[in-house]
Amino acid sequence: MLRFGIIGAGRIAHVHARSISQHPAATLIAITDPVAEAAKNLAEQYNADIATNADELFANPDIDAIIVCSPTPLHIEHIVGATRAGKAVLCEKPIAMESSALTPLDEGLEGYDARVMMGFNRRFDPNFARAYELVDKGEIGEVEQLTIISRDPAAPPKEYIAVSGGIFKDMTIHDFDMARFFLGDIKEVTAIGQNLDPELASTGDFDAAIIVLKNAAGKVATIINNRHCATGYDQRLEVSGPKGSIFADNVRETTVRLSREHFSDSLDPYLDFFLERYEAAYYRELDTFIRAVEETGDYTPSIADGIAALTIAEAAAESAKTGATVSL
Amino acid sequence: MLRFGIIGAGRIAHVHARSISQHPAATLIAITDPVAEAAKNLAEQYNADIATNADELFANPDIDAIIVCSPTPLHIEHIVGATRAGKAVLCEKPIAMESSALTPLDEGLEGYDARVMMGFNRRFDPNFARAYELVDKGEIGEVEQLTIISRDPAAPPKEYIAVSGGIFKDMTIHDFDMARFFLGDIKEVTAIGQNLDPELASTGDFDAAIIVLKNAAGKVATIINNRHCATGYDQRLEVSGPKGSIFADNVRETTVRLSREHFSDSLDPYLDFFLERYEAAYYRELDTFIRAVEETGDYTPSIADGIAALTIAEAAAESAKTGATVSL
Amino acid sequence: MLRFGIIGAGRIAHVHARSISQHPAATLIAITDPVAEAAKNLAEQYNADIATNADELFANPDIDAIIVCSPTPLHIEHIVGATRAGKAVLCEKPIAMESSALTPLDEGLEGYDARVMMGFNRRFDPNFARAYELVDKGEIGEVEQLTIISRDPAAPPKEYIAVSGGIFKDMTIHDFDMARFFLGDIKEVTAIGQNLDPELASTGDFDAAIIVLKNAAGKVATIINNRHCATGYDQRLEVSGPKGSIFADNVRETTVRLSREHFSDSLDPYLDFFLERYEAAYYRELDTFIRAVEETGDYTPSIADGIAALTIAEAAAESAKTGATVSL
Amino acid sequence: MLRFGIIGAGRIAHVHARSISQHPAATLIAITDPVAEAAKNLAEQYNADIATNADELFANPDIDAIIVCSPTPLHIEHIVGATRAGKAVLCEKPIAMESSALTPLDEGLEGYDARVMMGFNRRFDPNFARAYELVDKGEIGEVEQLTIISRDPAAPPKEYIAVSGGIFKDMTIHDFDMARFFLGDIKEVTAIGQNLDPELASTGDFDAAIIVLKNAAGKVATIINNRHCATGYDQRLEVSGPKGSIFADNVRETTVRLSREHFSDSLDPYLDFFLERYEAAYYRELDTFIRAVEETGDYTPSIADGIAALTIAEAAAESAKTGATVSL
Repeated sequence: MLRFGIIGAGRIAHVHARSISQHPAATLIAITDPVAEAAKNLAEQYNADIATNADELFANPDIDAIIVCSPTPLHIEHIVGATRAGKAVLCEKPIAMESSALTPLDEGLEGYDARVMMGFNRRFDPNFARAYELVDKGEIGEVEQLTIISRDPAAPPKEYIAVSGGIFKDMTIHDFDMARFFLGDIKEVTAIGQNLDPELASTGDFDAAIIVLKNAAGKVATIINNRHCATGYDQRLEVSGPKGSIFADNVRETTVRLSREHFSDSLDPYLDFFLERYEAAYYRELDTFIRAVEETGDYTPSIADGIAALTIAEAAAESAKTGATVSL
Repeated sequence: MLRFGIIGAGRIAHVHARSISQHPAATLIAITDPVAEAAKNLAEQYNADIATNADELFANPDIDAIIVCSPTPLHIEHIVGATRAGKAVLCEKPIAMESSALTPLDEGLEGYDARVMMGFNRRFDPNFARAYELVDKGEIGEVEQLTIISRDPAAPPKEYIAVSGGIFKDMTIHDFDMARFFLGDIKEVTAIGQNLDPELASTGDFDAAIIVLKNAAGKVATIINNRHCATGYDQRLEVSGPKGSIFADNVRETTVRLSREHFSDSLDPYLDFFLERYEAAYYRELDTFIRAVEETGDYTPSIADGIAALTIAEAAAESAKTGATVSL
Repeated sequence: MLRFGIIGAGRIAHVHARSISQHPAATLIAITDPVAEAAKNLAEQYNADIATNADELFANPDIDAIIVCSPTPLHIEHIVGATRAGKAVLCEKPIAMESSALTPLDEGLEGYDARVMMGFNRRFDPNFARAYELVDKGEIGEVEQLTIISRDPAAPPKEYIAVSGGIFKDMTIHDFDMARFFLGDIKEVTAIGQNLDPELASTGDFDAAIIVLKNAAGKVATIINNRHCATGYDQRLEVSGPKGSIFADNVRETTVRLSREHFSDSLDPYLDFFLERYEAAYYRELDTFIRAVEETGDYTPSIADGIAALTIAEAAAESAKTGATVSL
Repeated sequence: MLRFGIIGAGRIAHVHARSISQHPAATLIAITDPVAEAAKNLAEQYNADIATNADELFANPDIDAIIVCSPTPLHIEHIVGATRAGKAVLCEKPIAMESSALTPLDEGLEGYDARVMMGFNRRFDPNFARAYELVDKGEIGEVEQLTIISRDPAAPPKEYIAVSGGIFKDMTIHDFDMARFFLGDIKEVTAIGQNLDPELASTGDFDAAIIVLKNAAGKVATIINNRHCATGYDQRLEVSGPKGSIFADNVRETTVRLSREHFSDSLDPYLDFFLERYEAAYYRELDTFIRAVEETGDYTPSIADGIAALTIAEAAAESAKTGATVSL
């Protein structure tokens, strides 16, 4: 039984608390959040203790592992603190707001046995994982072109966007990790930003983008992002190689098709939003983390994966600004 | 080059005239129809001569083959007449209104080399033909259960239904032939009729039906018929065996899918009606007939196939009336 | 919190125990099974007490509701016993082996407030339930034709089939209930049995069947059953009315499609078997039962529904034997 | 009846000759090709005269319209010659090898009534045309993102690639026109080239590419090209706007799906190659051209469209080389 503490009591903390409650080998001991009301809600719902702060969680001998759901600027501090206290860590993405802020991470972990996994949950989505598995089995030969379509059902509030770090770090970061999952290290980044919704123009951020990544072997991933999609949370990928292609389609609530006078075989809209779409992925992520701690010792996606995705995000922002491909 | 005469100038005659005009090895010489206006229209459109009557076509030495599109009660007379004149014959379904009316056929053809193919065009539909081909290759093992869904977009006029011979001879006859295509000779027929549209009740005919056919080996075909279907001409089949299943789906005008707020991947309605849906089938039927005359000598579906389908239709009518399975 | 006792510790008892463990308003108190080893396994896995027999469960004041997973011949005894003890009951299908055995049910429940729901779980399948919801909203008008395809991935052992009561009571009973769900009371039953697998011939039972049901308004349901299906557990239905059609397709593990040289868009096989396919249905069934007890008082599907399905099964057996439609 | 002459007797000339033979308002008078054998084959197959050279076609008073299927470097000469002779022109893409070679076109046409349509056949594909029609009807709102997947089944011979003008002018030129069809004039071009097949490396050309185009309103088109695709000729597009998305999928020979033990619903491979896939498009293109000549006077896609696509192709080549976005 792995005993968990959670830092943060927001939306994503609820997702992890639910996964823990459903996992036979996991139990939630305590949580902490500076917003007392949020902490109370989460603690009551999952029958957990409330800790005054993260340090109290780190000091708790009844806790084996920490899930970091704090605001991004605190991620490194919490990874380091938990590791130094001997806890395993599952940290939400991105690892930091800037790659220039990573120095304390190296320094903080030096000499310690870091058991840290990054929360790139989409690697654990049953659909994307199956696509990867088929690639891995050689069904299509070596990947030549990967296309990721990733559109949110609706943009978050302007206030959120303003502090989000920008679309590439906030939204595309998941797709950058997915590109690395299939293609490995990325050598060149080209990004084209769009401003589609006039309402969002004042945020100073793009609300849509096309990003092309190339690895050392010349294989590419094309990412198509949009902050909105009328039919729901549009999360697909396709990957092709010399021997075939694989498509991972959207997930729908049912298999029901409706045909009427002017159309046929109309399907349910896509599952909406990431809580529904990636519910299984979060659970499988937690399960993989628990097995890493208890059996395998394989904390993938790793800190290095988190840093790599952040670096790509920064390169994409630069490319979208300058109109030139950025080499890594 | 095979030179054709057509008896009849109705809707189905137009279909065959078009196929002939498109086929590089076929040419239309002359047509005949007691309705002068209809004959004139067809002849002008396809640049053909008008014959006074069927006998004039039979006597024409420039004609090699006759397509019989006359009313069903005249089919036997025209098959016999054309055969005795040395012409090959492609005859529309059904072969006759009653199996009791078949005696003149045997007598008429006795001593002649009958080269007669029945116009069960659906055997030549690229989709159903592919399904058959996959069965024939052993992809699913021996057929165990066949399901045919066959619904018209809308019922014909009541006046037509009244003289049609009933749903089983008029509509299901195609499905009976398709069942025989996949299962061979049928030994038992069970039919359940429905009266769905109150408008059609006065015709004294069913406007929908379920028919179950069983062959000597105990394999079954289930036919689901309806005189109307909101989404168009619903023409599908599925066939299963110990090793797998095959589905032949409806045909649509395009592959385009539309997704909006409340639905996703809505497709075009089904092609409407048999002229569109089975256009390729009619062409391939003609092509098969031409090759039968010029090369293969294989006039399948044969007169025997036409009679077998008619016999099943009569058994279905009896079963629907008595509520008992009819053995053949 | 509804407190449960379960009679029986077999496969289906495990399904219900899992649903209870996942439901926030349910708790499992105790179970009983004459096979000590089975009882012990289930009790340990879900941390429940073991009762000596069903009477001990009925007498337990800490139990509010009983789930009857005992062999079919004991269902009536257990429904009556639980009801007389004031417990609500969720009973597995079928309600009895013979409709002639129902007398003790009426007598046993007379004067008691029977709160009994039958476990026709498929009504709660998200796909079939959505199809029903669309029908109920009038999307296709009044149902005219329903087609249910229901094939198991592989036949059960011959020993099981021999005591199963026959395919209609054992397998089709679910489809009979589904037909009644969409069409209401059934007036005519026509069944055609098949013996496809020579291995199973010695059981004296059909291993495949086509059944056509008609309600008082002349609408029909066609059920296509087979004890085996190469691609998995084939569970579909389609329903059509004057305004459209609805299809509930099979469920697959992922949305991934694979395309290679000779084919495109190949999907995962169907989910296999009922534990996976109907996992959500069992959970929603339990949830509906809990709400019936605590809020709605609506125990649907009811005892009457259970009896109706059994009666249809007996009529189907008779029709398959005599080759004649049976009126109810 | 529009009377045609064709310059060139290669593969694409055969496509046009076939369309003419099937079109009720078109007739082929004469063709010309410096390769006598090729000219003879085409002329015999379609019962046309052979002209010594293009000028002879231009001088023929029995010819109303010229289809230019000559090598690209001769396109301008033939457009000018035919126009000066008073013929309408349907010219294959691209309009020229280099935009720097366009001067003779302007000079040559000055003072003449140019009735010239460019052969961007994909605008007339029933699937892409339907997608456009739905956009035009406002089904998805204003286009925000267009994605074109365009992969050939197999690369042409190295010798052809070497003189093809490069992938952007030879292959992507169709996709550039399709992007303009949906987005109008393009302002920015970003291209990333790939070398996937080592066999083709010596050609000095890319064998795959990702190209992102942006119009003045900031809407983008992403084109994904590859010289090979294992499953066939992969020709799809999807287009999304604020109110929905539209997908135009590949075309397959039949609708048949095969399910076996390890997979379900496997479809036919994509139609292979452009002769099959775009057969209907070529016919509809011809039909549009004939109506332009005889009724509408609307020669779209126009010479300006041909030049625009060529200009984008040159910008893409430059961007792929420099790694910088090129503004037009």
